[in-house]
Amino acid sequence: MSARIMTASRAPVRQSSVRAHNLALVLQTVANSADRPSRAGIAAETGLTRATVSALVDDLIAGGLLTEHDPAPRTGAGRPAAGLALSPSGPAGLGLEINIDYLAATVIDLTGDVRHRFLAQRDQRPLSPASSLAEIGALALQALEAATADGLAVAGAALAVPGLVAPNGIVRVAPNLDWQDVDAPALLHALPGLGDLPIAVDNEANLAALGELRAGGEDTFLYVSGEIGIGAGIVLDGELYRGNRGWSGEIGHVTVYPDGRPCRCGANGCLEQYAGQEAFSTDLDLAASALGIALSAVVNLLDISVIVLGGAYAPEFPRLRAGIEAELARRVLTAGLAPVTLRAATLGADAAVRGAAGAVIQQLIDDPAAFLNGTA
Amino acid sequence: MSARIMTASRAPVRQSSVRAHNLALVLQTVANSADRPSRAGIAAETGLTRATVSALVDDLIAGGLLTEHDPAPRTGAGRPAAGLALSPSGPAGLGLEINIDYLAATVIDLTGDVRHRFLAQRDQRPLSPASSLAEIGALALQALEAATADGLAVAGAALAVPGLVAPNGIVRVAPNLDWQDVDAPALLHALPGLGDLPIAVDNEANLAALGELRAGGEDTFLYVSGEIGIGAGIVLDGELYRGNRGWSGEIGHVTVYPDGRPCRCGANGCLEQYAGQEAFSTDLDLAASALGIALSAVVNLLDISVIVLGGAYAPEFPRLRAGIEAELARRVLTAGLAPVTLRAATLGADAAVRGAAGAVIQQLIDDPAAFLNGTA
Repeated sequence: MSARIMTASRAPVRQSSVRAHNLALVLQTVANSADRPSRAGIAAETGLTRATVSALVDDLIAGGLLTEHDPAPRTGAGRPAAGLALSPSGPAGLGLEINIDYLAATVIDLTGDVRHRFLAQRDQRPLSPASSLAEIGALALQALEAATADGLAVAGAALAVPGLVAPNGIVRVAPNLDWQDVDAPALLHALPGLGDLPIAVDNEANLAALGELRAGGEDTFLYVSGEIGIGAGIVLDGELYRGNRGWSGEIGHVTVYPDGRPCRCGANGCLEQYAGQEAFSTDLDLAASALGIALSAVVNLLDISVIVLGGAYAPEFPRLRAGIEAELARRVLTAGLAPVTLRAATLGADAAVRGAAGAVIQQLIDDPAAFLNGTA
Repeated sequence: MSARIMTASRAPVRQSSVRAHNLALVLQTVANSADRPSRAGIAAETGLTRATVSALVDDLIAGGLLTEHDPAPRTGAGRPAAGLALSPSGPAGLGLEINIDYLAATVIDLTGDVRHRFLAQRDQRPLSPASSLAEIGALALQALEAATADGLAVAGAALAVPGLVAPNGIVRVAPNLDWQDVDAPALLHALPGLGDLPIAVDNEANLAALGELRAGGEDTFLYVSGEIGIGAGIVLDGELYRGNRGWSGEIGHVTVYPDGRPCRCGANGCLEQYAGQEAFSTDLDLAASALGIALSAVVNLLDISVIVLGGAYAPEFPRLRAGIEAELARRVLTAGLAPVTLRAATLGADAAVRGAAGAVIQQLIDDPAAFLNGTA
């Protein structure tokens, strides 16, 4: 009867999807362990038989995703602990970012360590989309070469852009870059050298929020990415909230002063015009107050109790904090009942590119079968 | 192995919880059917055996939750179709509402039909919390008597209030009623006549949003309840989004004009001061514009594509629409890419009290075992 309750409203489970599920279960168990678990420990934690665990572990080792250290007695200070661990020489993730005044690329290995970082400061606004993509393509090639020199195979890439991205990777609009309907994956694949590397595209604030989540962020928080534009990533219960069409988090275009400064988007008084990087470099008090007004709206609407300030806001956090908190105290209806925690992001300016690379790693860990079968 | 994947990371399923799950599965199958399903039809749809379905159906009929009509040939125009249906004489739900200038009570039967409605127009602001609760208690008694006269047993009540409610039912703050930390369930139970009737308390906009959802609303929408105060219920993928502490949806205190009219909450320029019932009765254009500014913030932040205007906004919808849509077109970054649907609520002013009664019914349908065991 216990099988009945589980399968009553579901289609039969195919054998191949059972294996895929259990491969992910074993890999996630290793990834989430503080110590290096043994095969027996994984069996105890997952409820799988030891024979099943051993077969799955063998497959994951053969595929380069896990390493196993013998339980031999310690013979030297540098000897790693016995047990299973994610392989630092396993498939890696490539993070890419096109932002308004810089490009970035980073390689993260399967354990989450940053292995390579590349940054190119250059205003992208005078460039065409194709030119910007050619530049990030060149940076991607440098990163891939550096990974290869390390013996790392890059399994996939994710590109962060400051704009609205459709599920198929087309950038529908990136107001500050003046992009409209740019097929970034197609343009990147048309460049020499990137071959058939899978390339996902996502909003930079969404990826930065995921980066912050992976770096130990709270389960529920609003991540605000302060660049020339301002974006936000909304994390609810450990998941990114994307909205109906995937276009959530456009906090930069929340109205702060209805009859205020004209914005590039066509409206007046958008937050971006008071707290974007160019505005706040001239008036930090006005920026803090405008941020506080917009963030109060977020808290009143969503009852989110943690706000993380990232991007260019992170280093300015000590100078922004009091002004933002004054508005929150005044404008959040529940301010007297429960505190709102305001903090600087832990990752700083490279949160989005690290979040992009991390998203590739997360996908490998969530679905190792696709990688082992050669479809990832 | 298919049982293994299902139970790998879970505790063993106890026999009693299997029965509870399957009772709910059968009842929900009947509730969600357009026609009256037969026992065999339920077995086919759920994957349960016919013997199991029959035993569960017998229990649900004995408990008064289901009725079964014989598959005899039609002999008259009024004869109901054969098969199983929710029982209109089964346990009923009592909805209660205290709003700023009225009180309401409604009885809904298990099929969702409204059986009784009571409304008392009276400004609650001069009254103490205890007096308001005594008045709604008196209305509740009238409703219970009417239900009893109908042969209906009320299984529970839910009270809608225009304020922030803690999970234990204490109203932390209701600014327009001037309530603070009012233990509504305890005060109601201290009145004669309500006995040990279970009474839940929730925010009126949340309950109204649930009412709209049950009345056939979209899977994801923002419900805006325009009364003297303004609240919102956020429905995402068919579920109410409550936020970290259960205090989401305070759209009435979203800042529209940062240096604008002082609000009862202590801030300046809150939406409520421009689009609350007292404000919009004097200037509909200003109200529409202010609503449009605040709703643009919601859409920019949450990428919600359906907005439902309820409460006092519903009858004014034709006069509010153009002004709101003009602001949405101007201020929503994605307005040119995808439409936002703005519509009037289907339930009108009684959405909250109907949503409250409906929440009681929904709980019965989600967990019939608790009712049958006498714990609901």
